[in-house]
Amino acid sequence: MNPTASILIIGNEILSGRTVDTNINHIARRLTDLGITLTEVRIVRDREAEIIAATNALRSTYSYVFTTGGIGPTHDDITIPSIAKAFGVAVERNLQVESKLREYYAARATAASMRMADFPAGARVVWHGEHFAPGCIMENVIILAGQPRNMQVMLEAALPMLQQGQPMHSRQIDAWVFESQIAEGLESVQNRFPEVDIGSYPYRIEGRAGTALVARGADATKVEAAFAAITALLEDQGADIRAA
Amino acid sequence: MNPTASILIIGNEILSGRTVDTNINHIARRLTDLGITLTEVRIVRDREAEIIAATNALRSTYSYVFTTGGIGPTHDDITIPSIAKAFGVAVERNLQVESKLREYYAARATAASMRMADFPAGARVVWHGEHFAPGCIMENVIILAGQPRNMQVMLEAALPMLQQGQPMHSRQIDAWVFESQIAEGLESVQNRFPEVDIGSYPYRIEGRAGTALVARGADATKVEAAFAAITALLEDQGADIRAA
Repeated sequence: MNPTASILIIGNEILSGRTVDTNINHIARRLTDLGITLTEVRIVRDREAEIIAATNALRSTYSYVFTTGGIGPTHDDITIPSIAKAFGVAVERNLQVESKLREYYAARATAASMRMADFPAGARVVWHGEHFAPGCIMENVIILAGQPRNMQVMLEAALPMLQQGQPMHSRQIDAWVFESQIAEGLESVQNRFPEVDIGSYPYRIEGRAGTALVARGADATKVEAAFAAITALLEDQGADIRAA
Repeated sequence: MNPTASILIIGNEILSGRTVDTNINHIARRLTDLGITLTEVRIVRDREAEIIAATNALRSTYSYVFTTGGIGPTHDDITIPSIAKAFGVAVERNLQVESKLREYYAARATAASMRMADFPAGARVVWHGEHFAPGCIMENVIILAGQPRNMQVMLEAALPMLQQGQPMHSRQIDAWVFESQIAEGLESVQNRFPEVDIGSYPYRIEGRAGTALVARGADATKVEAAFAAITALLEDQGADIRAA
């Protein structure tokens, strides 16, 4: 079985619509690459009780929880103390990180900026080459920045520290067909290949109805067999198959 | 108190990273316009047990739950029967919708496409002018398509049927400043205006550090007062304020 994962996005700015989240899709694609099955995502406000409840629900259900957001120097950055409370541990200053922060900020160093050296007691600091403020891993919770570029750098530093799985195989075929036209045939293909996830995604391009059909699973042979059955179904229906 | 809302995105394709969700941000902005406070988002797989658990958790916590995805004609479209189970009611065919579907599909009508006339017993159908397959409202759960254009049309048809609140007031100011430089001052502004949410969002443009500061709240006078205090803080710090 592949490890499972969830993402917890912490951010009022996403919920108000001010900011468009891009972290979910980035993390989703990286986890899919590595055979870690992303199973749930939650977005909550910058409120301690909500962060604690979501962290505890997700960390007890999935192999990993990736959090993004709320780890900067300002009053609305409460992810670290909230997750420490979720684990029932104190927040501790990491002196090595503090020293790096003082070096980086120099004359601009403030008490507030030193908060970025605080971590839940017992967390492993995730160092990375490019930025000065590291992320951390607290048991199975990986705590990342919200700003996408920083998040991506931290994520790449953290991923080698995690258990990886068998990457999923995926095949896609598109046809100019209404999905209702092939729905019954597709269901019987799904029933023949229960270990393969078969998804059907309709769209319209300039008024013309098309459908993308995706077969995904851990077993490449079964995915290929399901894909061949979907292709045969489209041909039987006389569907106009789109070039990949 | 404004009504609260949550979004439940149902879709393997979002969790695998194949598709980038755009519905969260669209719904978030529309709810913010109408004074409905979006408080939580969840994304789950196309699995009955997961849809039921999330629906029941969210509908008992928030005024409204908006679901997107899984309402088409194919085997992976299980939102309607899953939400019916969450409410403990049967799925019933709406004959008026069925008749419209038969008219629309004509020779292409299949048993699978008629599934789009099925709704949880007791749900109100949400008619809209543009598309043939309507959404529905089951108590406080608003069931919408996943395809963004269809979702948006259904959402606009559903919103007038909901209780609306007092729209939030929001002011934003940007400055070329590290957020750590103003973190302490900002916290004291937040403490002076506890009813205003003050957010700090750092970014970099061509290597230069900037921060967006946002004051949001239901009381316009308090938001303006907090905004004035933030502006004064930036001026005290000698920050280079960016033109709006």
